[in-house]
Amino acid sequence: MSVIMCPGFKAAGVAAELKKKGKKDLGLICSRVPANVAGVFTKNRVKAAPVLLDMELIKSGVCQAVIVNSGSANCCTGEQGMRDAEAMASLAASELGISNDLVFVASTGVIGEPLPIEKIKTAIPDLVKSLQPEGIPDLARSIMTTDTVPKMVSAQGIVEGKTFTVTGVAKGAGMIRPDMATMLCFVCTDVGAASEILKETLVKAAHRSFNRITIDGDTSTNDTVLVMANGLSGAVIRSVAQRDIFQKVLDEIFLDLAKQLIRDGEGVTKLVEIMVRGAVSDSDAWKVADTVAHSPLVKTSFFGEDANWGRIVGAVGRADAKVDPDKIDIYFDDVQLVKAGISCGKAVEAEATKVLKKSEFVVTVDLNMGRGSDLMYTCDFSVDYVKINADYRS
Amino acid sequence: MSVIMCPGFKAAGVAAELKKKGKKDLGLICSRVPANVAGVFTKNRVKAAPVLLDMELIKSGVCQAVIVNSGSANCCTGEQGMRDAEAMASLAASELGISNDLVFVASTGVIGEPLPIEKIKTAIPDLVKSLQPEGIPDLARSIMTTDTVPKMVSAQGIVEGKTFTVTGVAKGAGMIRPDMATMLCFVCTDVGAASEILKETLVKAAHRSFNRITIDGDTSTNDTVLVMANGLSGAVIRSVAQRDIFQKVLDEIFLDLAKQLIRDGEGVTKLVEIMVRGAVSDSDAWKVADTVAHSPLVKTSFFGEDANWGRIVGAVGRADAKVDPDKIDIYFDDVQLVKAGISCGKAVEAEATKVLKKSEFVVTVDLNMGRGSDLMYTCDFSVDYVKINADYRS
Repeated sequence: MSVIMCPGFKAAGVAAELKKKGKKDLGLICSRVPANVAGVFTKNRVKAAPVLLDMELIKSGVCQAVIVNSGSANCCTGEQGMRDAEAMASLAASELGISNDLVFVASTGVIGEPLPIEKIKTAIPDLVKSLQPEGIPDLARSIMTTDTVPKMVSAQGIVEGKTFTVTGVAKGAGMIRPDMATMLCFVCTDVGAASEILKETLVKAAHRSFNRITIDGDTSTNDTVLVMANGLSGAVIRSVAQRDIFQKVLDEIFLDLAKQLIRDGEGVTKLVEIMVRGAVSDSDAWKVADTVAHSPLVKTSFFGEDANWGRIVGAVGRADAKVDPDKIDIYFDDVQLVKAGISCGKAVEAEATKVLKKSEFVVTVDLNMGRGSDLMYTCDFSVDYVKINADYRS
Repeated sequence: MSVIMCPGFKAAGVAAELKKKGKKDLGLICSRVPANVAGVFTKNRVKAAPVLLDMELIKSGVCQAVIVNSGSANCCTGEQGMRDAEAMASLAASELGISNDLVFVASTGVIGEPLPIEKIKTAIPDLVKSLQPEGIPDLARSIMTTDTVPKMVSAQGIVEGKTFTVTGVAKGAGMIRPDMATMLCFVCTDVGAASEILKETLVKAAHRSFNRITIDGDTSTNDTVLVMANGLSGAVIRSVAQRDIFQKVLDEIFLDLAKQLIRDGEGVTKLVEIMVRGAVSDSDAWKVADTVAHSPLVKTSFFGEDANWGRIVGAVGRADAKVDPDKIDIYFDDVQLVKAGISCGKAVEAEATKVLKKSEFVVTVDLNMGRGSDLMYTCDFSVDYVKINADYRS
């Protein structure tokens, strides 16, 4: 994967023995200078210690480094967990020679077990020494749990004739549902932007990407998305037009990472876009898309490559939205399977089955009642999802 | 299974070639005299033709027979589906020599395929001839789809010194979630009760049973629960005290059938009661119980017999209810795993793992915030659930 590392940032990932088999499990990303920062965090009422810490730190709007571990979520760990998160930040800050409150923390892994802070402490000097401009793949690997591939992406934009770069990494393969923001994601850019502008752009981009994906419908306690902008490119976002340019690049980065998350979802074999149109309102369209995207029966039929559209209609009908069963049209890509609530025939179903054999396709539900539309990205529900999650801790 | 058939009713089940391999797929239950009737139906906005027909018929409050098929849901079948449901009723009525509007209809099976009405027509004479007081097991078998065992139960009560009997059958193994009423269930009794009293008792009993179970969280388009009371025992429900006696018997019947449904759920190996107490309100308690009961991560950890309580806390936190993470206690049967939001230690977890190896157990979540409580019955999410539903139509 050819990912351009954003100038002015370095990253690293090392093995601190938090995970098994010498895998990388401790990561660091660091800007040459303090960067403006914006973030969104899990809406789960149960929040991990690092999330609580970052929610305090981000009030300053400034961040220079993020230290992150996998293997332990440092969640449901009480006061000791909070002390451990703070220690993780201050140990990294001290090694980097910067102020404690410039270092954010993130964790991912098993909930309820104490953070092995001694192992982290031991590994931090090596972690800081490993920082390098090409360190993004190491960072991306260090945050993986059930992920099978590292997830990263980069893109560039131009404002005032100056090129800026945006580079993002993310992790997440299970406990993924759209409730802002369903995984870890760190984005660094050398654009210059006030933290308020960053926040606004980030929220919009997340709404169209991370808030539109689901794997299993469970919300993590550790979700964190951070965007750091250090301004070193000289390109500065001020006007609305400049903001639009940055928004477009960030949208692209977020949506690309969001789709990477689903493709690598636990046991996933298919990425499916559920497009709902013709709803009375956008909000109704979203409710229908969300219900279809989460239905175990719909998701298992995707896995079975069975064009069992009755299950889609069943899910549409139980969504909390205005629906007239006799008006529903359903398409698999451009194959229309259902017209006005009834089957278009067995021949068409055979065509639809061909669509289902693809690894990515679109299911369109047209309610034919209004102009509201929205979409969700989901995946199939496979035997391997169950196997992975039945054995996760063993 | 020793089930007492309610006097004054006959039942039958025959093979009409709607399902494969000569399995029973057409059933009939018939009272000697017209019976008062009450019912509840799916809340799915997409309703099968027989559900729409019954919702009209039930306005009279009287019913003498129910004809039911498996193999096809007669849902999303347009006007032809409605004509087929009506034909099914009138063909049965004519063979029984009773009025059309005394015959209710139910269907279960694949959504979106036309009802094979000619096969049903051919089988009806044989079906009516097969009616017998001991026909309940045949009826119970004829309504099975992915069910592996027939589900039936009976109980008796006494009012005014007279004994009455209640006998129920039900089906359902997938597309089960609590949204009134998640499967087919037919209950007959020789008690005498006005249809309003029947309705009230039925709704209460369903609230405590069928509305408290989930297998996969999908709501069927064909859910139907009917209670027929023909009064032949001479025991009549009039006073509040008599109503309480009948309620108790009906509660017992419904809860027993509801648990039978879960035990035979698709791929299910465990029946788990999720008890939530200490909530700010009963409604909050229900939301928490419902969210935990539907979490794929919680359900796969039950399947894996892994006391991964972090997933339970994660689900509690994303429920739309007031929760203080630092007050949560969790028990597996009487083993306390979590106190004030943190682990009670590895030794206790080993004890909890023993509980998980049982086929039935209780998970109690105490929010320690108030006096609200409620419960859900759920099951594990297994590899076989996915296999069954990936291959359902093939």
